[in-house]
Amino acid sequence: MSSGTIDESAGTADTQAIADFLGLLACVEVSAFQQRGRDVLHAATVSDMSAVGTIAVAELGHFQVLCKRLTALGVDPDEVIAPFRPAAIGFERRTVPEDLLESLVKIHLAHALATDFHRRALPYLDAESARLADGVLAEGGRTGLAADRITGAARADRVTADRLSLWSRRLAGEVLARTQAMIAVRPRLAALFVDAEDDPEADVAEAGRGASGGDPADMVPVIGRMFRRANKGQARRVRDLGLTI
Amino acid sequence: MSSGTIDESAGTADTQAIADFLGLLACVEVSAFQQRGRDVLHAATVSDMSAVGTIAVAELGHFQVLCKRLTALGVDPDEVIAPFRPAAIGFERRTVPEDLLESLVKIHLAHALATDFHRRALPYLDAESARLADGVLAEGGRTGLAADRITGAARADRVTADRLSLWSRRLAGEVLARTQAMIAVRPRLAALFVDAEDDPEADVAEAGRGASGGDPADMVPVIGRMFRRANKGQARRVRDLGLTI
Repeated sequence: MSSGTIDESAGTADTQAIADFLGLLACVEVSAFQQRGRDVLHAATVSDMSAVGTIAVAELGHFQVLCKRLTALGVDPDEVIAPFRPAAIGFERRTVPEDLLESLVKIHLAHALATDFHRRALPYLDAESARLADGVLAEGGRTGLAADRITGAARADRVTADRLSLWSRRLAGEVLARTQAMIAVRPRLAALFVDAEDDPEADVAEAGRGASGGDPADMVPVIGRMFRRANKGQARRVRDLGLTI
Repeated sequence: MSSGTIDESAGTADTQAIADFLGLLACVEVSAFQQRGRDVLHAATVSDMSAVGTIAVAELGHFQVLCKRLTALGVDPDEVIAPFRPAAIGFERRTVPEDLLESLVKIHLAHALATDFHRRALPYLDAESARLADGVLAEGGRTGLAADRITGAARADRVTADRLSLWSRRLAGEVLARTQAMIAVRPRLAALFVDAEDDPEADVAEAGRGASGGDPADMVPVIGRMFRRANKGQARRVRDLGLTI
């Protein structure tokens, strides 16, 4: 496979990998939606409740559009999503925000870090799936709402800044753990998250993307590089918020 | 006041009562929204997740439209809603569903019972507020989703039927407690929930609806009658679901 684009008419293994990716994304979105109720509970004003609620509505919409795409690809969304649920639910359980600021940091940073990974898969998807996934990954107001509030709170109070910095590190670790757990469920996904910078020996990624699925063990060092690079982007975002890494 | 309709141009006390009612309704809707994440977590299929999520989206929309109306009436939604939050949050905390069936019973029965109360206020509202509140109280798919599933599960298994019957009784008690707690916060609301059948001595309701606000103590027997009548409607719905009262 020399092109980064896969047609819907491609082999069965490719369609499966695309389906797995869309299913993973759908699972992440619905799991995020599930947490927004708690975030709204933390909100003290109607304006904040409404803003967080609007993010929840967008996430549910993402979930629904991705499930619809899976069905259009002839795949049962239930079957594709189910294997990813434990990792997604575990992530949300381990990262329960204590207040609205922690909710906002999670909405902002955890989403951005996950997006860094997921975006890499876009070139390997068919055009329609890539278009949908791209729309889902667009920040859709999540960043705007959060950034000003976090920065303001961090600037106003050193203790808050330290607490949120620690929280952002915990979140980053948990996002990486969740991504790793999801790839472990479907090793062929790893190849979709890898690009040339992560993988100087391109044949490893090629093997992973091939119809044979490749050997999951080959992916381990590649995933390691991918995570280290993702952490750089995360560090920049954390500093932009006025937090420390 | 001889008419059941109040103009926006009516006295300050009336506008306050209308604002309190819209604020109470907004608070109930956003609190319901906050719980839907947990309900989605209980859902095992994409179809159920999507159906429960769609209810959540409707509830958030209700909250937003009611807040917008409050603002249009010159009232600060934050100020009106805040006093009702503890009762609403307490209700949700005391009625956490253990599985999807309990979620569906709550969505169906608790909403219907609350609607019984809230509908009584409509004739006392200005036309635009009444129109909005009427739309909010319309069941909007909540009943349809729940009823078939609950009835089917209750018919299939006696233990489930007994468990859900008990759950529906607990819910009814908690809805009544929440309504009472909310009226206690704003006693002038009581008069809006009372109609001629509850209150053979119409002057009690008249006193409550007047600009003076009336004596909350006068409302106690009226509220008692209102609750007894609401329980009859609830009993019919419980039986319709194949549960026992």
